[in-house]
Amino acid sequence: MTIEEFFQLSAGKWFSHRTSQDLASKQSKSSKSDVIIETLAVDDPEVVKLCQNYKIDPSHASCGVRFTWKAIESDKEKHSGSTVVVTVPDEGHPHRGKLLQEIVSVEKTSMTGRYQIGSDDALILTTESETIWSEERLWFASPNLRMRSNLIKRSGNFSMASYTSEIRMGGSKPDAKASEAA
Amino acid sequence: MTIEEFFQLSAGKWFSHRTSQDLASKQSKSSKSDVIIETLAVDDPEVVKLCQNYKIDPSHASCGVRFTWKAIESDKEKHSGSTVVVTVPDEGHPHRGKLLQEIVSVEKTSMTGRYQIGSDDALILTTESETIWSEERLWFASPNLRMRSNLIKRSGNFSMASYTSEIRMGGSKPDAKASEAA
Repeated sequence: MTIEEFFQLSAGKWFSHRTSQDLASKQSKSSKSDVIIETLAVDDPEVVKLCQNYKIDPSHASCGVRFTWKAIESDKEKHSGSTVVVTVPDEGHPHRGKLLQEIVSVEKTSMTGRYQIGSDDALILTTESETIWSEERLWFASPNLRMRSNLIKRSGNFSMASYTSEIRMGGSKPDAKASEAA
Repeated sequence: MTIEEFFQLSAGKWFSHRTSQDLASKQSKSSKSDVIIETLAVDDPEVVKLCQNYKIDPSHASCGVRFTWKAIESDKEKHSGSTVVVTVPDEGHPHRGKLLQEIVSVEKTSMTGRYQIGSDDALILTTESETIWSEERLWFASPNLRMRSNLIKRSGNFSMASYTSEIRMGGSKPDAKASEAA
């Protein structure tokens, strides 16, 4: 699967069920949200702007995606937000490259990372700042069931594992064939 | 990584934090347990017996492992149990093959499945009966932090996703180097 195909398959409305397991306190917390994923044309003004913010030629972008989420059950944390993600492949290596991201939630933050699509069609997203390292693995169990595992390090120590099951909304069963998911 | 190396790295005492997400009812449930993983010699009587139960020549087995678990918090389900797993590689393909298993818990059940170690060092275990299909992915984030995602179909429909973080017990931090984990 290419990164473009991965995001095209991700487009749509999803019910997202996330559980975070705190590795130090050994407590877990679940949250549910509705997520809308939209693919953006690479000449979309938001994609172009995000590239320019990072001083990257927008013509090098391969994908743009907007994620919008809204919590179903209040969990005292961010209830809603959106983020735009842009992928910029490494030259000659379309399966991996830079990940540009702008998150609009309680506050607006920018971050860069790396993406890589493996031979098993799983997408790995890695982001890193001075204090936080995050690696997320996303994969499709079926066109209507997406799974994610996320691991976070703070100050060099593993602190949190989060796991998410995402079911496509709109009546299709999670085990529907690809042709039914469109 | 070979299947032998995967199980050798798995050997020890682990704190296991599991969350099951019911894909139909959208409810989640967490449970915690202590797990002991012991590697068994391929000529161990339990390994030999399990092979014989499946009419497989014990000399074809590559690994034997015993898992013993005990729930930390009562969750009205199986509180403890043990299972012996034996791997029998496909001829000429050590990275994949048959998985023989006997589970001793509320009742004693036998099941066979398949294992495969990927080029990303993740272990995939697949088991299937007439009504239940299960696929589990296990991987090491570090020598002291093991992660598992499990997906279950009942009667052809995805019914449950379970996610587990396992932290090696004994004082080592999850992010310790391999040399510290021994």
